[in-house]
Amino acid sequence: MNVEIITIGHEILIGQIVDTNSAWMAVELNKAGFEIAQITSVHDNSEHIIEALDMALTRADIVLFTGGIGPTKDDITKQTLCKYFDTKLVFNEEVHNNIETLLKNRQRAINELTATQAMVPENCIVIQNPIGTAPITWFEKAEKVIVSMPGVPSEMKNAMSTEIINRLQKKFNTPAIVHKTVLVKGYPESALAIKIADWENALPDTVHLAYLPNYQIVKLRLSGSSTDELALEFEINRQISQLTQLLGEAIIAYEDLPLEVLIGKVLNEKKMTIATAESCTGGNIAHKITEISGSSQYFKGSVVAYDNEVKTQVLRVNPNTISTEGAVSAHVVEEMAVGARKLMRTDLAIATSGIAGPTGGTDEKPVGLVWIGISTPEITASRMFQFGTKRIENIERSTQSAFLFLLEILS
Amino acid sequence: MNVEIITIGHEILIGQIVDTNSAWMAVELNKAGFEIAQITSVHDNSEHIIEALDMALTRADIVLFTGGIGPTKDDITKQTLCKYFDTKLVFNEEVHNNIETLLKNRQRAINELTATQAMVPENCIVIQNPIGTAPITWFEKAEKVIVSMPGVPSEMKNAMSTEIINRLQKKFNTPAIVHKTVLVKGYPESALAIKIADWENALPDTVHLAYLPNYQIVKLRLSGSSTDELALEFEINRQISQLTQLLGEAIIAYEDLPLEVLIGKVLNEKKMTIATAESCTGGNIAHKITEISGSSQYFKGSVVAYDNEVKTQVLRVNPNTISTEGAVSAHVVEEMAVGARKLMRTDLAIATSGIAGPTGGTDEKPVGLVWIGISTPEITASRMFQFGTKRIENIERSTQSAFLFLLEILS
Repeated sequence: MNVEIITIGHEILIGQIVDTNSAWMAVELNKAGFEIAQITSVHDNSEHIIEALDMALTRADIVLFTGGIGPTKDDITKQTLCKYFDTKLVFNEEVHNNIETLLKNRQRAINELTATQAMVPENCIVIQNPIGTAPITWFEKAEKVIVSMPGVPSEMKNAMSTEIINRLQKKFNTPAIVHKTVLVKGYPESALAIKIADWENALPDTVHLAYLPNYQIVKLRLSGSSTDELALEFEINRQISQLTQLLGEAIIAYEDLPLEVLIGKVLNEKKMTIATAESCTGGNIAHKITEISGSSQYFKGSVVAYDNEVKTQVLRVNPNTISTEGAVSAHVVEEMAVGARKLMRTDLAIATSGIAGPTGGTDEKPVGLVWIGISTPEITASRMFQFGTKRIENIERSTQSAFLFLLEILS
Repeated sequence: MNVEIITIGHEILIGQIVDTNSAWMAVELNKAGFEIAQITSVHDNSEHIIEALDMALTRADIVLFTGGIGPTKDDITKQTLCKYFDTKLVFNEEVHNNIETLLKNRQRAINELTATQAMVPENCIVIQNPIGTAPITWFEKAEKVIVSMPGVPSEMKNAMSTEIINRLQKKFNTPAIVHKTVLVKGYPESALAIKIADWENALPDTVHLAYLPNYQIVKLRLSGSSTDELALEFEINRQISQLTQLLGEAIIAYEDLPLEVLIGKVLNEKKMTIATAESCTGGNIAHKITEISGSSQYFKGSVVAYDNEVKTQVLRVNPNTISTEGAVSAHVVEEMAVGARKLMRTDLAIATSGIAGPTGGTDEKPVGLVWIGISTPEITASRMFQFGTKRIENIERSTQSAFLFLLEILS
């Protein structure tokens, strides 16, 4: 079943924002048994939008619009769809009530502009947007479906996950799709492909394998579509158990969850608490942990010790260790971890120190060198990593490596 | 002068990679006086590529292809362009030499697959690719230009920066483009639109206005294109000074920079240092600050005090304040800020405490309630915010609000 995505907005075409919505939508639609034939980005220009829609409908059964439905006058998707369907805007009370409730929660009143969001094309099915003022509108035309959604990623994702995909599956009676994802550590993508080549070549035609590298891990996604969902699920599980024999402990999870969620689960099970002491990661480990609802059960706090004085004064790192071995060293991250664990009275602590770059490297300690330390009541351990020259990537890779190190210690 | 970008590759349409190339190209092309009319992503499918090219040429004078020119058999852009121009592939010795040199540097020899990269359409102008094996091919058709480039970002960027843009400017003798962005705080998008409606309606046709809401701020972008760059720049500056009279202190910057970069600039100028004490933001403020290279000049560290014990033991918040007023209160964030400033010996500290959600709210203190405190040697201040029910958005909004509060105190 072919889908096309049309993203509307000047800001994409001048490069002010990168269109990350389409990739997210493609992944979710693929999982649900739909294929994307084309992604088109156009300006808020009525004629051009209609031309793109006409072309898309020659190739696809479903056209999904994102963007161009804000209350300001540069947004014209709604008016354009009215023109396309030769209909008019009508007041929708339910949308108006939703806008009022939303704004009330933000201590704001409805004004003449936000009120226009309650005007919708007369021929559409309105889908409420519980987290934004622009409603989602669904149109049908000769067995084809056209949906207009907000461009704000959180609102688009909410609409897709809770409403659009379900409705599309129902409308088009798509076959069942089964996906299972296995997270593998310790292999670059190409080395993993060689390691599992025989198994991969023997996969039945009904099962498709995708490699999805993500920093320090590779996600292997097995998927298939079939009218016999149970048989397909059985086959995919059988393949995964063969893969387990092949890869052993390199498999760290059988579900597609971020590492910080997996860690949270283990910590909850073991009733353990954790703290972090961060230099080069600058609070990103704590940030990732605390993005998870319920993390206050196991996370007590963090000291971001960017300055050496904070390492010595707050985390009680010995100043001699810093002066003799440097702030980016095994002993410093170990002392940071021990210090954080004692200061915040937790079972575990993890510490990072490295040269995130792009400047600050030396011949001996180049940009991308990172030490990660862990302290528990039983052990203190540390490990060295050498990443690249890009600052933001180094911060992210250090964070992911810290999580992997922690998972290893926890298991 | 209209340009269209066509990106070719299965991996974009299944969402495995996000197309960041197009945004980069759009920014560079805009700066050089070209406007992007449409961005189209299609599969490696000959008919579909030709259809997209035909359509693009109805709207644009220039069509830039990226991707689909690797040596493997799924890549068919080159063959498709041969079919389109009714020409054939011919051997190009210069490309062959370039491939040999490149592979030699990587300690590899040319093989039958890489050798095919030296076959190019007979009617094209070949532009050498010094950092990859696929050459860039340039076609002209009835005063229009079609260019095919690699999809590898570094190779595409090198080709664009060193060759393509220069050649296009020369060929099309393009007008200048001027963009200016103003950051406005304190107004939701719709309220801002009402506030500046008269000014907006009086804008000359040569100046285009776009609203780009981004958490607690709205970016207003004025842009235009003209052969008389100075006159256009003068006009846009004149419009911005009128806007300044209208909005006054609500304008926090006249360039499009993240708040953490603006703060870094001010702190560097004033030679001041900062620390953070974070509860509900969980380290995100520190993370954002430390993503900026050079932040170690002004950022000393952070205490993420998720647990109340960390608030009292590390930040020295009075336990009585917590028990009488609750952890989410004016006095607690103020004491946290003072504690962080003293602990890390900085000029400033900023503190957050709130209910990020989705659980943990009460009638009196609902999810989304956040207090932010600031401490300097002269003053201690705090402010209350009420956000929504989404955890990750609440963290991001609290972070942006903390930055805005800080900018206010700094100015």
